[in-house]
Amino acid sequence: MSLIVQKYGGTSVADAERIRSVAARIAARHRAGDQLLVVVSAMGDTTDRLQALAREISEHPEARELDLLFSTGETVSMTLLAMALHALDVEAVSLSGAQAGLRTDTTHGQARIVKVAPERIQQELERGRVVIVAGFQGITEELDVTTLGRGGSDTTAVALAAGLGAGRCEIYTDVDGVYTADPRVEPKARKLRDISYEEMLELAAVGAKVLHPRAVELGAVYGIEIVVASSFTEEPGTLIHGGVTMEQFNKVRGIAHDLDVAKVTVRAVPDQPGIAATIFEALAEHQISVDTIVQNASVERLTDVTFTVAGDDLRKATPIVEQVAKKIRAAEVVAEEGLGKISIVGTGMQTAPGYAARMFRALSDAGINIDMISTGEIRITCIVHRSDVEDALRTLHKTFELEKAAAGEL
Amino acid sequence: MSLIVQKYGGTSVADAERIRSVAARIAARHRAGDQLLVVVSAMGDTTDRLQALAREISEHPEARELDLLFSTGETVSMTLLAMALHALDVEAVSLSGAQAGLRTDTTHGQARIVKVAPERIQQELERGRVVIVAGFQGITEELDVTTLGRGGSDTTAVALAAGLGAGRCEIYTDVDGVYTADPRVEPKARKLRDISYEEMLELAAVGAKVLHPRAVELGAVYGIEIVVASSFTEEPGTLIHGGVTMEQFNKVRGIAHDLDVAKVTVRAVPDQPGIAATIFEALAEHQISVDTIVQNASVERLTDVTFTVAGDDLRKATPIVEQVAKKIRAAEVVAEEGLGKISIVGTGMQTAPGYAARMFRALSDAGINIDMISTGEIRITCIVHRSDVEDALRTLHKTFELEKAAAGEL
Repeated sequence: MSLIVQKYGGTSVADAERIRSVAARIAARHRAGDQLLVVVSAMGDTTDRLQALAREISEHPEARELDLLFSTGETVSMTLLAMALHALDVEAVSLSGAQAGLRTDTTHGQARIVKVAPERIQQELERGRVVIVAGFQGITEELDVTTLGRGGSDTTAVALAAGLGAGRCEIYTDVDGVYTADPRVEPKARKLRDISYEEMLELAAVGAKVLHPRAVELGAVYGIEIVVASSFTEEPGTLIHGGVTMEQFNKVRGIAHDLDVAKVTVRAVPDQPGIAATIFEALAEHQISVDTIVQNASVERLTDVTFTVAGDDLRKATPIVEQVAKKIRAAEVVAEEGLGKISIVGTGMQTAPGYAARMFRALSDAGINIDMISTGEIRITCIVHRSDVEDALRTLHKTFELEKAAAGEL
Repeated sequence: MSLIVQKYGGTSVADAERIRSVAARIAARHRAGDQLLVVVSAMGDTTDRLQALAREISEHPEARELDLLFSTGETVSMTLLAMALHALDVEAVSLSGAQAGLRTDTTHGQARIVKVAPERIQQELERGRVVIVAGFQGITEELDVTTLGRGGSDTTAVALAAGLGAGRCEIYTDVDGVYTADPRVEPKARKLRDISYEEMLELAAVGAKVLHPRAVELGAVYGIEIVVASSFTEEPGTLIHGGVTMEQFNKVRGIAHDLDVAKVTVRAVPDQPGIAATIFEALAEHQISVDTIVQNASVERLTDVTFTVAGDDLRKATPIVEQVAKKIRAAEVVAEEGLGKISIVGTGMQTAPGYAARMFRALSDAGINIDMISTGEIRITCIVHRSDVEDALRTLHKTFELEKAAAGEL
């Protein structure tokens, strides 16, 4: 008898019918003799509705109250799933984040898990029950309810798998796995049989929203294999794991894209230590995430610092940067909207020559102008005009032959 | 600085606008220097919606899961009310039944409060915060969430008033007090300035659904004065208390009515000890509440036993009674639907002659036939045909001059 940890996302439990269908899947596994620990998200768009309700009441709802409010969404779905299992004569019990022992810090809205105390879960599993746990929520030492931030149910599932020594975690969602690229843009995109934690992180961080990045990080740290699959089909999904096989090494695994990028350039910055820190500390204080950063080689002790932010953040970022620019005596601040981002991701690309050159050549041949370039361990990213992003994706998918399975892959 | 305990019902917090308006009332009292402990129900018809959702999933949802599901309703309204107070710059904190220290037994769906451990509430009040508590919910020793049954938020409020030594509890609802009769039936019905616990219990138990009877009982036991008033106006409500003044004593205070009564008669029952017990134990086992019970004087060691049940319960009750009748060798079981009930209520009526006679005469003069009669300490009830109930109410309201205020009343 082995312990299986599963997580079902919001679309998988969006209404009574889907909850009954998830219950039937769980019941089948339970009858096959497995111990089951199931993490659920809130039904459908519940969290968005609760957020809208809070905004009707207050422009700046307090984070502690917001967390308590949001936590009701998962409480509803977990109790309904337990009822659906009872209706199938399967013993089941639902546990809140508090009852499941998910202790977090006190950062309401973005809490980090500090400890998993799984005694109650273990007791219930030993009694032969399916244990259903509310995702996304935890509890502080003072017994206040916290939430882990959007997509936090994935993190709950991987943390519980780690806390209970499960070794593996199944994430059921509305897509059937991780693809070489977004299939809505490139119909030839192929589902990957497996992918490494690092590759998955790069794909997720640059726009492939299949799995919450913190869940992948946690999986990497605790060595939990994660399977991403659809709750609507019986198709095998994608396995995210630590080992990289020979066939996968040194190959582009996938392409990520993002259609909402803006760019800010601080021109003619005096090239002194601490200048970059001054700019980016000011942005961090205002909770603005900065993505790609490029600093040119300096000419006559003057340099240009360019960085990208999400399009939504540009209006907030510009005045902050202008104030800093004045202080550090930079010449001017130039902002540009309407950009996008395209990245190729694959372990070992950095050490193998030619990937970057092939990427730039392919884009150039397709008439696509590259605005900025940045590279990471296992990723090469180009900033291009937003209207070129989808063309770029299809071009690169073909160039790196992603529609073809690698040797050893299905 | 005195501690005020308030409770706001579902219609008072039905939407964002009403929540803001309740917050404004609380803020005014808080600024006047009072400590405030506020109990809230779920918004509008939330509990009904959750119940319907559960029924979509399972015909017989498990009581433990149902309690957890229902408890989300009050969590939503309490957090929204806290946010609305923050938006008015009033420090406020919302607490679940568990955090508020409402310990109950393990009877899910109908839990009784066993203890109030108000340390957290006291801490928050001492910090100058308005404390908002989820009504209707508590927690068992094993930290499982329970609910107190429909209308349980009233009970929460009175229990907290008792636990914190508040002496008084204000219940805000969608009616502005307790009336001499239902104003929809008798437009001349008058709002009572005050009423005793016992009178209120008789009025509530026979159909005046202003306040949950358990809350009144609890108020009587702990000597908590209860004010029932509207959250939509500034009108004074009705005070429910223990003291009965000279003016109120020996007077009909109000008329209760019920339009959904059915009657079951077990004919020619051998008159032996234990026969009544046999019948009513069988009904109690099936959770059927029996109301008025009448047993005729026996003739030749045979008697008729008649009782009333809610119209909804008749279909369930009849086969059970038929089975018992066979066992105890009664002649037959006769069921009748389409009845109603009318009661006059007032402390001391029993000891003052003439009230019953005046009631029966007035009904007779109005051409209303009385089917059954039952009397209690402070109540006289007649079962009449359903179509006669409203006429009976108006007739008795006039007979006992309830439209006129007593001396000393407003």
